[in-house]
Amino acid sequence: MPITDSTTNLSDLKQRVLTFSRERDWEQFHSPKNLSMALAAEAAELMEHFLWAEPAASQARAAEPGRRRDIEDELADVVIYALEFANVTGIDLAAAIETKLAANAAKYPVEKARGRSDKYNEL
Amino acid sequence: MPITDSTTNLSDLKQRVLTFSRERDWEQFHSPKNLSMALAAEAAELMEHFLWAEPAASQARAAEPGRRRDIEDELADVVIYALEFANVTGIDLAAAIETKLAANAAKYPVEKARGRSDKYNEL
Amino acid sequence: MPITDSTTNLSDLKQRVLTFSRERDWEQFHSPKNLSMALAAEAAELMEHFLWAEPAASQARAAEPGRRRDIEDELADVVIYALEFANVTGIDLAAAIETKLAANAAKYPVEKARGRSDKYNEL
Amino acid sequence: MPITDSTTNLSDLKQRVLTFSRERDWEQFHSPKNLSMALAAEAAELMEHFLWAEPAASQARAAEPGRRRDIEDELADVVIYALEFANVTGIDLAAAIETKLAANAAKYPVEKARGRSDKYNEL
Repeated sequence: MPITDSTTNLSDLKQRVLTFSRERDWEQFHSPKNLSMALAAEAAELMEHFLWAEPAASQARAAEPGRRRDIEDELADVVIYALEFANVTGIDLAAAIETKLAANAAKYPVEKARGRSDKYNEL
Repeated sequence: MPITDSTTNLSDLKQRVLTFSRERDWEQFHSPKNLSMALAAEAAELMEHFLWAEPAASQARAAEPGRRRDIEDELADVVIYALEFANVTGIDLAAAIETKLAANAAKYPVEKARGRSDKYNEL
Repeated sequence: MPITDSTTNLSDLKQRVLTFSRERDWEQFHSPKNLSMALAAEAAELMEHFLWAEPAASQARAAEPGRRRDIEDELADVVIYALEFANVTGIDLAAAIETKLAANAAKYPVEKARGRSDKYNEL
Repeated sequence: MPITDSTTNLSDLKQRVLTFSRERDWEQFHSPKNLSMALAAEAAELMEHFLWAEPAASQARAAEPGRRRDIEDELADVVIYALEFANVTGIDLAAAIETKLAANAAKYPVEKARGRSDKYNEL
């Protein structure tokens, strides 16, 4: 069965990344500090694809055949480091996201935030 | 039932983020370019917790009671934007990660990479 | 005499930053690794002002009275850390920039690069 | 006469970068938004040299013959984009840095901040 988002839970994915790291004895390098740097560096590499594009044109740019695979790789790298950060710090990602979305919902109530990109303190 | 990594698959999590965005009519702002910027900005905020710490000390720093919740929030933000980036570009994250780990396994075979942090072209 | 770009050379500015750091005995924290993180974090804070703005609108955004001073502060932070990085590694910034602009001129000759944002290998 | 930090003022350096950009008709791409992204991306590239190094070892790493020139290039790129950001927004960098250092001196008085990496609100 192919691995897809609908068949993969976050625990399995975290475990897969942890196993990869442990097989190579890389946990010694995976401090929260170092992982946060690697995460930020990969996020920047993803961003580099869009430096000079208009936002509206970046959708087409992300779909270019010669670029698409690179973008998938960069996004994968970002999430791999996020998962490993969660591994080494013992964070439950789904719970953290649920908590954050609830906080965001309070800061950005639908009726006030609809169609606006302002920060909550400017709404 | 509480939401946890072991009960949450990636499709559900992506859908949750997409719904949050659609309810606020925020998809108009969520171009790949803008999302990649937001992702990089949140990754930098996570990193800020560890700027001056020794790597070995960053583990304890991530566990400080007054800091732990902030770090969970920043990590959640990173993954929320990664999921939304996957939403707007149609990327299957689990498949992309599987592909990337396979490529990494070829570049970093266990017997050569064990215990080393060198780049594959320096191994 | 007020301090301005036309009356300030880079050596003086580097010295000013170094003195600030030495007075506080902060050189112990200013490894190239840590400074590169701080630099990236400050660059991300500058970027946060423009996450959801259209590029063309970001000019006006940078001039908003309530935002202008923040942006000046973030840009100053970026350059302060770049200067301190140059201090601790012994890099002559003006020479490094001169070398880089010469390399860029070779990669992006005026007649080929005019009005185009493509990377040199796509020109 | 060689170009060095002690013979170069910031106005001249800003002008050099602006001329390079104008000759290529690149000002159309150089919105504050886009330049802040490019700056953050270059800062991340500089940081990538130090991801897995101990802070104390990063000094030697920055001096490695095969790496030194790359690091000079990345740092130059960071400052070039900072200068161009200052160009398009009309910021006097030396004045902004002077203002920021004065604010930092108030937040981090020598007697309280000496030898400590804590944030001002934790001193």
